[in-house]
Amino acid sequence: MSLDARLDQQLAFIAELDKMKAIIRHTPLVDGSRRETDAEHSWHIAVMALLLAEHADEPVDVVKVMKMLLIHDVVEIDAGDTFIYDAKGNEDKAEREQKAADRLFGLLPDDQNAELRALWEEFEERKTPEARFAASIDRFQPIMNNHLSGGGSWKANQVQPETVLTFNESRIGGASKRLWARMKTMIEISIGRGDFPPAV
Amino acid sequence: MSLDARLDQQLAFIAELDKMKAIIRHTPLVDGSRRETDAEHSWHIAVMALLLAEHADEPVDVVKVMKMLLIHDVVEIDAGDTFIYDAKGNEDKAEREQKAADRLFGLLPDDQNAELRALWEEFEERKTPEARFAASIDRFQPIMNNHLSGGGSWKANQVQPETVLTFNESRIGGASKRLWARMKTMIEISIGRGDFPPAV
Repeated sequence: MSLDARLDQQLAFIAELDKMKAIIRHTPLVDGSRRETDAEHSWHIAVMALLLAEHADEPVDVVKVMKMLLIHDVVEIDAGDTFIYDAKGNEDKAEREQKAADRLFGLLPDDQNAELRALWEEFEERKTPEARFAASIDRFQPIMNNHLSGGGSWKANQVQPETVLTFNESRIGGASKRLWARMKTMIEISIGRGDFPPAV
Repeated sequence: MSLDARLDQQLAFIAELDKMKAIIRHTPLVDGSRRETDAEHSWHIAVMALLLAEHADEPVDVVKVMKMLLIHDVVEIDAGDTFIYDAKGNEDKAEREQKAADRLFGLLPDDQNAELRALWEEFEERKTPEARFAASIDRFQPIMNNHLSGGGSWKANQVQPETVLTFNESRIGGASKRLWARMKTMIEISIGRGDFPPAV
């Protein structure tokens, strides 16, 4: 295939990527003014990975972590954002996202389709140190933003601190003891100042 | 310095980064619904660099290009976004951005301050193949979005096609003949369908 034909395929994918700017997550900006987009979240956590890699419990290839985080939510262009504490929405999430990966990464030349698909699958499986650390950053950032904005998606969705702690213990604590300790401190401060909704 | 003290400094910087989500650029989303944020733009071009590196005229270290693009606009948190065709706004841009770099990267531990500052300075100077290719992607993306959205910031700001071509010939054409050829095709199509404002 000519480089011009490859560029056609790459630009078709790159134009699709723009839709990541229209997918609204549950996480608020730190100033609480609105909720962030998938594109904004992906940028924030890629830079976080670059800066926080020294806190991973196992050595990680930070470049691989950054690449994973840059593309891990692209499937949401077709499959939508599923709120992490939404049990029902998470039932058919895997199937919806596999179809989305087929179509979206499939726009690219075969070698790049394979590369991005492999990065995304590795992220989803969370079996390598890179995938585990990437997942921990992907979870730490929304908790940090909820904490800094005074409640954010916890208040808006009736999420209790126990749920946050239980859900994230393996995701964050399994990859970085230091980030997990910091997260628990944030949650304690948030509980103390009433950032969580009253227990039902 | 302890790793916990380093984490304090890193998280102070990471919280500041959130403000990139509130800086509105002149470039519209492809669907024309609104203008994109600095965070969204930075994400889009980092992924573009990963996919388009093969089109650089000189071999580039793509990881360095991605890192540059992820952090190149961080100074705008303090210095604001200066429209590229705004001659007056560009007069004191360098000075405003140096001050911003001092404060923002200065929040980080010394080694990371030095690393990000060096990446940003290299990007600004455009003397290395990586910096030149990064600059070409940073310019190609808004032109692509203007083209795909039917005019975007050209119409909104009375920008003529000659201005776009003259300004970007060295920025894009100097780093990738293939991207430059593609950009000229986009501009011709945009001229043909009336995406540019009437000549004054």
